[in-house]
Amino acid sequence: MTAELEQIGKQAQAAAFKLGQLATTAKNQVLQAMAQALRTEQTAILTANQQDLLAADNLPQKFIDRLRLTSERIEQMAQGMEQVATLPDPVGTVERGWVNHAGLRIVQQHVPLGVVGIIYEARPNVTVDAAALCFKSGNAVILRGGKEALQTNLKLGAVMRQVLADFKQPVNAIQVISDPSHETAKRLMQLTKYLDVLIPRGSSRLIQAVVKQATVPVIETGAGNCHVYVDESADFAMAENIILNAKCQRPSVCNSMEKLLVHEKIAAAFLPELANKLRTAGVELRGDEKVQQLLGSTIVPATAADWDTEYNDLILAIKIVPSLTAAISHINQHGTKHSETIVTQNYENSEHFLTAVDAAAVYVNASTRFTDGFEYGFGAEIGISTQKLHARGPMGLPELTTTKYLVRGNGQIRK
Amino acid sequence: MTAELEQIGKQAQAAAFKLGQLATTAKNQVLQAMAQALRTEQTAILTANQQDLLAADNLPQKFIDRLRLTSERIEQMAQGMEQVATLPDPVGTVERGWVNHAGLRIVQQHVPLGVVGIIYEARPNVTVDAAALCFKSGNAVILRGGKEALQTNLKLGAVMRQVLADFKQPVNAIQVISDPSHETAKRLMQLTKYLDVLIPRGSSRLIQAVVKQATVPVIETGAGNCHVYVDESADFAMAENIILNAKCQRPSVCNSMEKLLVHEKIAAAFLPELANKLRTAGVELRGDEKVQQLLGSTIVPATAADWDTEYNDLILAIKIVPSLTAAISHINQHGTKHSETIVTQNYENSEHFLTAVDAAAVYVNASTRFTDGFEYGFGAEIGISTQKLHARGPMGLPELTTTKYLVRGNGQIRK
Repeated sequence: MTAELEQIGKQAQAAAFKLGQLATTAKNQVLQAMAQALRTEQTAILTANQQDLLAADNLPQKFIDRLRLTSERIEQMAQGMEQVATLPDPVGTVERGWVNHAGLRIVQQHVPLGVVGIIYEARPNVTVDAAALCFKSGNAVILRGGKEALQTNLKLGAVMRQVLADFKQPVNAIQVISDPSHETAKRLMQLTKYLDVLIPRGSSRLIQAVVKQATVPVIETGAGNCHVYVDESADFAMAENIILNAKCQRPSVCNSMEKLLVHEKIAAAFLPELANKLRTAGVELRGDEKVQQLLGSTIVPATAADWDTEYNDLILAIKIVPSLTAAISHINQHGTKHSETIVTQNYENSEHFLTAVDAAAVYVNASTRFTDGFEYGFGAEIGISTQKLHARGPMGLPELTTTKYLVRGNGQIRK
Repeated sequence: MTAELEQIGKQAQAAAFKLGQLATTAKNQVLQAMAQALRTEQTAILTANQQDLLAADNLPQKFIDRLRLTSERIEQMAQGMEQVATLPDPVGTVERGWVNHAGLRIVQQHVPLGVVGIIYEARPNVTVDAAALCFKSGNAVILRGGKEALQTNLKLGAVMRQVLADFKQPVNAIQVISDPSHETAKRLMQLTKYLDVLIPRGSSRLIQAVVKQATVPVIETGAGNCHVYVDESADFAMAENIILNAKCQRPSVCNSMEKLLVHEKIAAAFLPELANKLRTAGVELRGDEKVQQLLGSTIVPATAADWDTEYNDLILAIKIVPSLTAAISHINQHGTKHSETIVTQNYENSEHFLTAVDAAAVYVNASTRFTDGFEYGFGAEIGISTQKLHARGPMGLPELTTTKYLVRGNGQIRK
């Protein structure tokens, strides 16, 4: 597989060279045709997916739910591609430009990253989604999805590649790795000669494994141990609304709330009613000693590990804090720098929280669930970066580009 | 040292938290005082440097030249710090802002990266330079320079830390690692809990070692196998000027020219006179077979390895190419994506070169030597990024920041 992977890298690089110079209209035509092809090839895609599902028979139901394709899900994928076609093309946009002291005309322009590697779990929708975003931003993509989705991914890849061939565009703009071994995944993470960036998508376990093994630059995405802090000045009804939304609307995702911090002065007045509503919504409540004292024996005692755990489930750990400063310090120590919210009516506290909390997105009086490329109006999302380099927070198409300085002179030399 | 390094990381993070909220005027005052302190403490600094120089006695002259401090060099360091004080503060500048569909007021604002690690060679000027840039951009810095400069670096660090103490600012904003072992350097590269980014500065050997061992995100800097391509339409006098400047003005640095590509149609008319001038300037010429035929036996035959080698010396390898396409393809295969120049009078060729060459900076009719933060007008430079993530090309103060989304709402929840 080493030689084969080398070949895949080389092909991707050659494709990327052509993609970088492709007109926006040409790219959009291909995306629209790919969407259509997904619909036309629905039966073949579902058959491939059936193979994967049969093999995955003894895996957990939640896992199988993500792996399973239906007509409706294929239609969603197709519509997603059409949506990407309507988005502005980031390639060629000028970041800034000026004339330097020597008269050089310098322009900083957006260009594709080049070759993007995506390592993800058994979610076939990522295959189509990532391929569409990379293609629109002029990048060649190498896809390495979870082995349980291999037949589905290979079929989806074949459908998209056929469209590229029909349009006489480089088919290796989209490549699905057919060898599902860990060894090959590891080699991909170290394919520095051909890969410009690696984006892992999935559980924090997957992401940490990639960060540890990769020599290719990685964009970390998705780990979210998000907090809501209810300040002593908070409007209780607003706080309740935000907490129920942030915790319950979609507990499995990274921007859902995992921890609640409450100012000690309002805990007794605020928590009992909230706890009832959360329980009614099916949320298991854990808490520190003060919370246990206040809410009684139904509260599961929170261990030290709880404060660092992303549940991705209907579980919430609650802590009572003596001050805003204590809340900020707890968040900066235990958070994953994803999304953090304060609920407050106090101007100074809101500004201090915004400044002092170190996270990709910091909110005043809003649900953490808004940290999302679509909610932010980007029209797409390749992931939510929780690192500080390159991109931070929801990443849309522009985040799949880099820049290049184009410098036009008339014979200038350096003194 | 493991525990000590952990402590250094923790201290840096605590300092970074305060630095991120420091007013620009406060930062500038400290930088000006540090510049003054470097002057006042000159004798002590030179004494420490003398210790390092004595121990380095048997090392190459070139190495010792870089290690040696003089009154003049200390004055340059001080002036550099004062210059950084005059630059605009990138922290707090707003990248963009808008209101989303739910009425959330979203602002993307520049904030410091946090804790920056710098790994570099025995060049004491980097200690002061990096400390000034990191401090101005609100970052805490951990400095790990070459062991041969340890006494000098520790003294420079002590001088700057004393100023921080005098101004009641966090002294751990600047920390110099006192243990020069490789083991500690490696541990620093994996201090993901505290470090936000690692910037290696120095030889490509150093940089590659960091890229391989680091789990902290790295910004690769400085490898430059830069080309000048002389198109068939080139103005010979201009081409000669640019080549002599790009090769000879300062051959040891990354933006100097290492390879010359010449269109075959003009090679016979252009190369002989140029070769004489280069030889007069002390440049050793290497060439492919055609160049050898044309210029005779004084040309050292270029091996395959030559095309991938960054000499950082008065050596130039010349290749005759059949076309612009061949030149671009050679550059994209062998270049380090740093700085590439075409000399041409042809509009279409200039545009094609700008588009098709994959590098941080692509030039038409100008010397590669311009790729530099000062030449670009940034007023400072922490390095020249040759990678595509985060920053590409010369990195000034804004490149030492990341962004954070500040989102102000009035109770919004996600539907």
